[in-house]
Amino acid sequence: MAGPNELLAALDGVGADRRRGGYSRHVFDDAERELREWFVEQAEARDLRTTTDQNANVWAWWGDPGEGAVVTGSHLDSVPGGGAFDGPLGVVSALSSVDLLRANGFTPRKPLAVVVFAEEEGGRFGVPCLGSRLLTGTIDADRAGALRDPSGVTFAEAMRSSGADPARIGRDEAALRRIGQFVELHVEQGRGLIDLDRPVAVASSILAHGRWRFRFSGQGNHAGATLISDRRDPMLPASQLVLEARRIAAGVEGGRATVGRLVPNPGGTNVIASAVDVWLDARSPGDRPTRSIVEDLSGAAAKFAAAEGCELDVTEESYADTVHFDAALRDRLSGLLDDAPALPTGAGHDAGILAAEVPTAMLFVRNPTGISHAPEEHAEPEDCDSGAHALAKCLAHLAG
Amino acid sequence: MAGPNELLAALDGVGADRRRGGYSRHVFDDAERELREWFVEQAEARDLRTTTDQNANVWAWWGDPGEGAVVTGSHLDSVPGGGAFDGPLGVVSALSSVDLLRANGFTPRKPLAVVVFAEEEGGRFGVPCLGSRLLTGTIDADRAGALRDPSGVTFAEAMRSSGADPARIGRDEAALRRIGQFVELHVEQGRGLIDLDRPVAVASSILAHGRWRFRFSGQGNHAGATLISDRRDPMLPASQLVLEARRIAAGVEGGRATVGRLVPNPGGTNVIASAVDVWLDARSPGDRPTRSIVEDLSGAAAKFAAAEGCELDVTEESYADTVHFDAALRDRLSGLLDDAPALPTGAGHDAGILAAEVPTAMLFVRNPTGISHAPEEHAEPEDCDSGAHALAKCLAHLAG
Repeated sequence: MAGPNELLAALDGVGADRRRGGYSRHVFDDAERELREWFVEQAEARDLRTTTDQNANVWAWWGDPGEGAVVTGSHLDSVPGGGAFDGPLGVVSALSSVDLLRANGFTPRKPLAVVVFAEEEGGRFGVPCLGSRLLTGTIDADRAGALRDPSGVTFAEAMRSSGADPARIGRDEAALRRIGQFVELHVEQGRGLIDLDRPVAVASSILAHGRWRFRFSGQGNHAGATLISDRRDPMLPASQLVLEARRIAAGVEGGRATVGRLVPNPGGTNVIASAVDVWLDARSPGDRPTRSIVEDLSGAAAKFAAAEGCELDVTEESYADTVHFDAALRDRLSGLLDDAPALPTGAGHDAGILAAEVPTAMLFVRNPTGISHAPEEHAEPEDCDSGAHALAKCLAHLAG
Repeated sequence: MAGPNELLAALDGVGADRRRGGYSRHVFDDAERELREWFVEQAEARDLRTTTDQNANVWAWWGDPGEGAVVTGSHLDSVPGGGAFDGPLGVVSALSSVDLLRANGFTPRKPLAVVVFAEEEGGRFGVPCLGSRLLTGTIDADRAGALRDPSGVTFAEAMRSSGADPARIGRDEAALRRIGQFVELHVEQGRGLIDLDRPVAVASSILAHGRWRFRFSGQGNHAGATLISDRRDPMLPASQLVLEARRIAAGVEGGRATVGRLVPNPGGTNVIASAVDVWLDARSPGDRPTRSIVEDLSGAAAKFAAAEGCELDVTEESYADTVHFDAALRDRLSGLLDDAPALPTGAGHDAGILAAEVPTAMLFVRNPTGISHAPEEHAEPEDCDSGAHALAKCLAHLAG
């Protein structure tokens, strides 16, 4: 029997990123494979039956796999330089819940499974929730297989070198039919629970959100020998885009727009870039305002590019509309948990993808820094324990 | 006997950069080591005596090394994704000149040497002309040894793993005493010779130039969960810096300011950066205006940072004042070469570093695209031949 803190401690050092700080654990890299293997060992030590589905998601079954199962879990990958809790907390809490339920003599009447989804952050191949999107067919399988990481390796190639068969990726009806309800526990990525002075919340909604790549192309040249008047420097419109994204998002109720990744090519100090890739992360409470942020920004970017004699190419890399979690399930779980507050979030989750298919809920555990996707992300041990107990209570209710 | 085009063709493919286009050949990497080995083979095949000095520069001597030598050469490293001519053209023209002189039955009365300087572009360790700066003591040896590449390896460590002893880097009086005159041939990095319809020029001057790193530090956080009003996003002041650099430089006669390298940390699409490093390349015809570009920009950057709640740290990574090449030598060589025009350049060169120590000259070979530090950089075969013949004529004059 292990609590979530003890399980988390075992992951300490895996994928630690000395250069960026925090952790970098990306699908099929050494660190993420080590975490998958650890998960399988932990599951097998609990007599859970493990299997990896056709989309590289790992399942651990308590009892025979079957339809109408109660499923919980999260992911083990991270953003580059991310925190220790985003993803792993949901996985260790799920394992810990199994221990708690067994210690209480509980036997599920429905099948119960713990799942680890692949590439939730999109940190390697650019599309977040790739494992759950593939499972549900929310992304085209051919497009997913052809996604490339920054070094040019495709998702299909990476999958193949990890020993899996990329020919079978795509919507998995049998796996979906087995999911009766899905509950994901996650560290909170804002300050809601700090303000409410509570350890655990249930989720109400997720903002509409997506990722777009803006590629500005100009003329690479020598930084010293090229007159200012002769330049077509894509860094100029790229920089204007960053500022305009902030300006536009600030004018949209609940809107957010972020550029956290910007890559000039070739990237030499004494070289005018030939092209600059800028990734926009845009979100808002609805489809319409989110789309309008991107449309307004694309229009502005086209003007910025033209003014510098540059070309612009905009590609939508991923999109997910607003999610409102199943209200009945949310209220039942809240009632089980001393009327846990219902909080919206701006962060995407596999639960948001599954919500279109099955009744889905999320539990959030208080994060005393309010910071996420950064090394400062945190959850106090007693709150992690509260989270695991809350999850166990929910699972007992749903599967009992 | 080999012409410059034949020699250049042998380097085709070495260090080709599939991702960026062009070539990436950085000091002590596989490609640059292969080029060094190739140079040594070529020199030895010509019965030149090769030696690597304490600062990783390679020398090939025709006759016994001695004081008052006539030295020519350039470099074999490139910027990331650079062209095929910047550096190598000067080296192959030097080797070809030796062949031409011998074919003409010429025997130098003074020692004659071909030199390949290390890390001219600063593409790996950030300081351009590192080999010639070390040779002349223009950079402190301890500082040079501690310079780090993007993966954290120091220059001293890289030197050691290439089999050299970093304990001995620094000003090399004996090597300097041996240089009587230095002549570097280089592909032109602008349109001067196109406009004049001439294949070869002599250099008149180099702009004052330097590199500064602006590090903006804010608060890394989740791109979806963090309200716009709660952000301290260093991408904002970094982008303002790019735009302000252009604005300020455009107001300075002959001024240039470029940001070609910008690195957000951690660099995730769904992550507000915790810090952004921006490298500024600034140049102008004089020390005062160059310094004033950087001072004005630093002042503006501090305000941009403060407005976003970010910190700013500015570091000068390298600086070189305006160089006026030895007028007597320049005019003598121009006279030898059908009154070759004298052209200024905005590009830095090892010749610019050596000019403070010994009479130094440069020859430029026409570049029909006017573009450099990019794959489009070019020189027509007949112009390369003209360049090699011009260099041979100069060497015969100086060493005969």
